[in-house]
Amino acid sequence: MIVGIIMGSASDFDIMEPALHVLAHYGVPYEVEIVSAHRSPAKLFDYAAEVAQKGISVIIAGAGGAAHLPGMMASITTVPVIGVPVMSRRSPEGWDALLSIAQMPDDVPVATVAINGAHNAALLAVQMLAIHDSALRSLLTELKTAGYDKVKQQNELIQKRISEIKHN
Amino acid sequence: MIVGIIMGSASDFDIMEPALHVLAHYGVPYEVEIVSAHRSPAKLFDYAAEVAQKGISVIIAGAGGAAHLPGMMASITTVPVIGVPVMSRRSPEGWDALLSIAQMPDDVPVATVAINGAHNAALLAVQMLAIHDSALRSLLTELKTAGYDKVKQQNELIQKRISEIKHN
Amino acid sequence: MIVGIIMGSASDFDIMEPALHVLAHYGVPYEVEIVSAHRSPAKLFDYAAEVAQKGISVIIAGAGGAAHLPGMMASITTVPVIGVPVMSRRSPEGWDALLSIAQMPDDVPVATVAINGAHNAALLAVQMLAIHDSALRSLLTELKTAGYDKVKQQNELIQKRISEIKHN
Amino acid sequence: MIVGIIMGSASDFDIMEPALHVLAHYGVPYEVEIVSAHRSPAKLFDYAAEVAQKGISVIIAGAGGAAHLPGMMASITTVPVIGVPVMSRRSPEGWDALLSIAQMPDDVPVATVAINGAHNAALLAVQMLAIHDSALRSLLTELKTAGYDKVKQQNELIQKRISEIKHN
Amino acid sequence: MIVGIIMGSASDFDIMEPALHVLAHYGVPYEVEIVSAHRSPAKLFDYAAEVAQKGISVIIAGAGGAAHLPGMMASITTVPVIGVPVMSRRSPEGWDALLSIAQMPDDVPVATVAINGAHNAALLAVQMLAIHDSALRSLLTELKTAGYDKVKQQNELIQKRISEIKHN
Amino acid sequence: MIVGIIMGSASDFDIMEPALHVLAHYGVPYEVEIVSAHRSPAKLFDYAAEVAQKGISVIIAGAGGAAHLPGMMASITTVPVIGVPVMSRRSPEGWDALLSIAQMPDDVPVATVAINGAHNAALLAVQMLAIHDSALRSLLTELKTAGYDKVKQQNELIQKRISEIKHN
Amino acid sequence: MIVGIIMGSASDFDIMEPALHVLAHYGVPYEVEIVSAHRSPAKLFDYAAEVAQKGISVIIAGAGGAAHLPGMMASITTVPVIGVPVMSRRSPEGWDALLSIAQMPDDVPVATVAINGAHNAALLAVQMLAIHDSALRSLLTELKTAGYDKVKQQNELIQKRISEIKHN
Amino acid sequence: MIVGIIMGSASDFDIMEPALHVLAHYGVPYEVEIVSAHRSPAKLFDYAAEVAQKGISVIIAGAGGAAHLPGMMASITTVPVIGVPVMSRRSPEGWDALLSIAQMPDDVPVATVAINGAHNAALLAVQMLAIHDSALRSLLTELKTAGYDKVKQQNELIQKRISEIKHN
Repeated sequence: MIVGIIMGSASDFDIMEPALHVLAHYGVPYEVEIVSAHRSPAKLFDYAAEVAQKGISVIIAGAGGAAHLPGMMASITTVPVIGVPVMSRRSPEGWDALLSIAQMPDDVPVATVAINGAHNAALLAVQMLAIHDSALRSLLTELKTAGYDKVKQQNELIQKRISEIKHN
Repeated sequence: MIVGIIMGSASDFDIMEPALHVLAHYGVPYEVEIVSAHRSPAKLFDYAAEVAQKGISVIIAGAGGAAHLPGMMASITTVPVIGVPVMSRRSPEGWDALLSIAQMPDDVPVATVAINGAHNAALLAVQMLAIHDSALRSLLTELKTAGYDKVKQQNELIQKRISEIKHN
Repeated sequence: MIVGIIMGSASDFDIMEPALHVLAHYGVPYEVEIVSAHRSPAKLFDYAAEVAQKGISVIIAGAGGAAHLPGMMASITTVPVIGVPVMSRRSPEGWDALLSIAQMPDDVPVATVAINGAHNAALLAVQMLAIHDSALRSLLTELKTAGYDKVKQQNELIQKRISEIKHN
Repeated sequence: MIVGIIMGSASDFDIMEPALHVLAHYGVPYEVEIVSAHRSPAKLFDYAAEVAQKGISVIIAGAGGAAHLPGMMASITTVPVIGVPVMSRRSPEGWDALLSIAQMPDDVPVATVAINGAHNAALLAVQMLAIHDSALRSLLTELKTAGYDKVKQQNELIQKRISEIKHN
Repeated sequence: MIVGIIMGSASDFDIMEPALHVLAHYGVPYEVEIVSAHRSPAKLFDYAAEVAQKGISVIIAGAGGAAHLPGMMASITTVPVIGVPVMSRRSPEGWDALLSIAQMPDDVPVATVAINGAHNAALLAVQMLAIHDSALRSLLTELKTAGYDKVKQQNELIQKRISEIKHN
Repeated sequence: MIVGIIMGSASDFDIMEPALHVLAHYGVPYEVEIVSAHRSPAKLFDYAAEVAQKGISVIIAGAGGAAHLPGMMASITTVPVIGVPVMSRRSPEGWDALLSIAQMPDDVPVATVAINGAHNAALLAVQMLAIHDSALRSLLTELKTAGYDKVKQQNELIQKRISEIKHN
Repeated sequence: MIVGIIMGSASDFDIMEPALHVLAHYGVPYEVEIVSAHRSPAKLFDYAAEVAQKGISVIIAGAGGAAHLPGMMASITTVPVIGVPVMSRRSPEGWDALLSIAQMPDDVPVATVAINGAHNAALLAVQMLAIHDSALRSLLTELKTAGYDKVKQQNELIQKRISEIKHN
Repeated sequence: MIVGIIMGSASDFDIMEPALHVLAHYGVPYEVEIVSAHRSPAKLFDYAAEVAQKGISVIIAGAGGAAHLPGMMASITTVPVIGVPVMSRRSPEGWDALLSIAQMPDDVPVATVAINGAHNAALLAVQMLAIHDSALRSLLTELKTAGYDKVKQQNELIQKRISEIKHN
């Protein structure tokens, strides 16, 4: 039960790296592979062929521009594919990647997250795996609690800042 | 192991209905509920509170305009939430719903599908459930085969049409 | 009669701070609270529950990306909610926040101001409070006069610059 | 304490009419006036000059295309101005009106609602007036209850439809 | 030396049909095939494998939404691929198809034409083939002459209409 | 002192016709010519060469899609060119024509009006001619008065409608 | 016969300054004035009232965001108004200013130039004045010649650079 | 059999330079020329007139903003024209150039590549020339192999980085 992370180019790695840390945090094993829909199209099939034997349950695919990797992987494999639109230097604010990933036709879904949202892609993968894993579900419940704590802490910091502003 | 389908208004039903047929096709039980983030905000919590006891494993949420339902449900529950941007009469080509659903902050993912993509939302839910269900995985593999058949049949039809065109 | 300022994250504070200075200028008391629609959804209700007893008459809510905070607060409370779309690092020029805040469905209005327009959000709150407060109304009239003065001063500066340009 | 509704052209009336019904429902007196920023610019000042004596507390301004009416009225008067972007035949999906109304500079706020959102504009006006009117506040609280009822009724209808679908 | 026309679905045929008539006009042989990047991904390779033996010199690929077909075919074959963005019912004005086709990464070009521009795709294919075919070049020169004639004829018609208008 | 109206295709005539009526109203002579930047590029020069001898003082150019006609005419002639972006069937809401006409480089201005704004293009031409024509200036002043009258008449109509609504 | 240049704020001056240099180059007298549609609305009328007596023949108006200055000035005066959309820090790539200026309703044209196109605004003003000024027309013809020269010089530079590239 | 590269301004050279290196790599001769559609319109015809005698088989045209160069060259010549939308300082993310180049009318195709995609423009030119040049076809096949190698090398680098991350 591992998560396969693929991306079209090593230059996408910095955007995709947060996904690794999320998966590590939840103790979910992962592997990473450069698979370019455009430079190594046959590798799409090679990768898909090994999904079952490697025990890959979910695929996270990051790509920018005319971002075909997530959709093409979804066309070949039956495991859920999560797409991360990567904002690139040449891309008009990431619209091209967002639309290339989200606007898939019927029968070939891609679970699209926010532009540069690799962190959430990993969390979504964990949620999928947690459907049959009560330990993961507990950890995800903790994340909700942590969210409230984070808000509480940020709030305390802000109150200090407000207090200073009001006294100046 | 059922899929919970929620939508903000009965007027979204026609767009969301394809999801029901997909789930029925795969034999995946579902329930449908009108839950409006804006008209019945407390119901978000009521609904989330019953998720576990009802055995809801995945939630599909459809919404248009300032589409907050998928993201708000994702903020409360830990099961995966799939968001369907609904193109509404008042909406500039669905951009508002697409962005309101996809651009979620870290820690609260929503699996966004295409504008009006309820069919794919259901299929994505099936893929998630198939992670631990080999029967569903087989059915999903059949869908891939069916895709090739569909292309083959469409191709035959088109060849006839081309033949007519060439002979005119 | 105080103004409640809420924002989804401490990272929004720099954008929202101008609102504090405007309210201070008009002598309108305010309080600030981090309330994240996504990380602390229940706090939306806690906050709303205290609105009346705290004497909060208007709420200013700032949020970026899939900006659900203003709309969700408007769904729970009956006091006017002013929404500030915050342009974020990951956001395509603020479109996502603008649309997530402005495109609300019937029955749940949010008074949307410009992208990063916290200054105006506060001024709008003052205008609302001034409906029954002639002192505030006088101050707002002064702002109009100040506008003309500002234009006059800027004009004088520009005339000097023009004069230099024409003599070079 | 009345609401002034202005619009740039009689052709905007159908989009603006829902505002009248909302105000009538809440027993809030209103008057309607055609004031075109572009065809009758001096009337902006005439209108503003009578705001106080007529007892106008809030202005709702609807306009399409290069929609200057809300912002220009806000530049002259000190009462809150609510802007309704009207989607016109010649307008690229209402973007022009939305941006012309929302993107106001500091010191001159306009409370922007959704494209064609006249219903919400009126409700926002009621919320502003309710700050000092407990009867209106009670009515607004009833709207929240009505929202839950509406969702409940829609839900019952949908359950019947689901039941039919499941039995076919 | 034939042109291969591919499209993702039979529903794209009406948009793509003008390409056939252009090719027929120039006497350029063509074949048409339904090849769906998403429903028949392996067929991309089958098709590409036969390109040389069939004598396909240029490929025209039409697709809508997350339009991956042109780019994926370009990733496999070395013949020029011309992409036609198809405006679909679910697509926000064809932006998704235009960006999915045009914004290709370095090393994998797609020659993108206008939204629904199948006529021009065929003409571009003819221009490519004309590089080594003087007969085609002559025909293309005739098209230029025909353009002037068309303008002349339209102008004559318009002059009549103007004349009527001026005399009314 | 006549106005030259050019358009790329006879199919643009219905959008451009209002310009003729405006010019006729002001007694400004005009001529109309189909000049396609793309189908009759040399005619751009022919047309420009006759501008002076024909006494053309202003050119109005309408075009849709990749609308090059206004900018290209402006590149050749020295008389002011007014560009009308024509929303076409294949065009994403007229954005392409608006940007192709407005975003001209330094040294080659085009006076761009609203999408489908032929009426205003003609009025702008009249304003230019009125710089040295006091009779035209008087007529333009009358248009301002007519604007106030139009608003007054529309207002009277609306008051009746309001009165009916209030009494129902 | 002078050109009136107005802008909403001194902060727009750097963008507008090129217009001054163009007018100076052509020997066209100009005056500059800060006139804010939003901070000094009455000054719109004061300015318009003096247009005739000052001998202002054309107005150039620059504004950003919800850019109402050009359109409002056009609503009051009968001289041609040229609008310069100013890209501001808070503006999504200048779309708001472009649409607020270009999308004017019938009867109130604004001659819109490119985003930040003050240089061209001035040139357009010169073209308008040149309608009755043969000396200006000669200068504008020289600009066309200068364009060819500029291209020729740039071409020579580029040939050197190409030559270096080819020899490396 | 050479490739003609044209651009509107020397300032586009840095964006266009990659095309030169691609052509040099494939041993395809090229020439570069500054041809501005707007500053040197007649040079469009001069250039086109020499296309045949110079042996230019394909033209690559780069332009930004209201990018008319590719389309205008395509209107005059019969050789294929490849358009490169250049993202400029004043351009809203390159949308203007992309739409001005891609949205050409029937009969005048431009082969549009990605924003700033000069590298791919050259490769597309090589693909066109390779239709009748088996040596070029072999080199293009090598590019496909090189793509796989590049992915393999990048993958090895990433595996090291992953390994480090997993051990920290």
